[in-house]
Amino acid sequence: MKKIWVSTPRREVLVNVTGELETALAELGLADGALHVYSPHTTAGLVVQEGADPMVAEDLLARMAELAPRGLSTYRHLEGNADAHIKTALVGNALVLPVVGGRLALGTWQQVFLAEFDGPRRRQLWLTPLARA
Amino acid sequence: MKKIWVSTPRREVLVNVTGELETALAELGLADGALHVYSPHTTAGLVVQEGADPMVAEDLLARMAELAPRGLSTYRHLEGNADAHIKTALVGNALVLPVVGGRLALGTWQQVFLAEFDGPRRRQLWLTPLARA
Amino acid sequence: MKKIWVSTPRREVLVNVTGELETALAELGLADGALHVYSPHTTAGLVVQEGADPMVAEDLLARMAELAPRGLSTYRHLEGNADAHIKTALVGNALVLPVVGGRLALGTWQQVFLAEFDGPRRRQLWLTPLARA
Repeated sequence: MKKIWVSTPRREVLVNVTGELETALAELGLADGALHVYSPHTTAGLVVQEGADPMVAEDLLARMAELAPRGLSTYRHLEGNADAHIKTALVGNALVLPVVGGRLALGTWQQVFLAEFDGPRRRQLWLTPLARA
Repeated sequence: MKKIWVSTPRREVLVNVTGELETALAELGLADGALHVYSPHTTAGLVVQEGADPMVAEDLLARMAELAPRGLSTYRHLEGNADAHIKTALVGNALVLPVVGGRLALGTWQQVFLAEFDGPRRRQLWLTPLARA
Repeated sequence: MKKIWVSTPRREVLVNVTGELETALAELGLADGALHVYSPHTTAGLVVQEGADPMVAEDLLARMAELAPRGLSTYRHLEGNADAHIKTALVGNALVLPVVGGRLALGTWQQVFLAEFDGPRRRQLWLTPLARA
């Protein structure tokens, strides 16, 4: 398992990690199969979404803030980040990405984002190459 | 990686692709392991849900429309499909399905659906057989 | 594929299955790679979240009940569990977890939960060890 570090600049932000994953993939030496990308955190997940228009990420974060508002008086987890836990559960904390010819096989408009919901922080991603059958 | 095509008949619809996946799986020749199913799109995802009562899919689509309403004035992605991007992020764009004896191992009531949120379109699914350890 | 059983004590509850997964993993004999954990159900999913403070699980369940309320008059699936289907689609019904040195590699605060949305029931989880490339 290979670990990489990602710095997140704000409390809520989608950080494009596609380039970091490509670099790590080359070091792992996987030609064909899949790359398992895992966030070991409970307030930061992973999402594949459009990278061309940064407004897509903004819209997603704004809507997540409606689905799990910050600071609801009904939250019982008292660290001020109950919303971040819920958002992470909704988007998920792991991805499996196809790998062909030593490269991530992503759709034309797709990029891979670490979804930070309780930053700014230094986050890790854990990468495992999975074998094609 | 094997690619299959799926036509989606409406803007928002769950298209049952279980049969297509079974056919592709037979061609891939995987006996035991897992099938990675990947949507290379940013406005169409994948979901495993009940296939017996088609109303389950209708309820899911109706509720997704509440969670990410179409055409909110606050959306900043101006292509009219910001809701579709958000819905795709919520359900996810990839699945890993268990394979036993050359067949998808699904629960009694489970079927696999391409979740279209910005159709009608021709969509692709990318399939990678993963090796059992 | 290895099957394990999990009893869920209430209609909506997160049941920590980390210990059961560790035991099963030892029996499967996987040293390095990933463990695929699959819920064959349509009203119970899987989620990785904080296990230290049980209030995190309570907050998640409470918020899911807002996102997909029970018993809406608009639901068309008439078995009284339309909300449970929607919640399961939102959190997802499968996980891929990294395995290093024969152990699940989880983050410091992470535990693995079966997310029951229509219990109490006896549920199954299906486990497949995936090979590292």
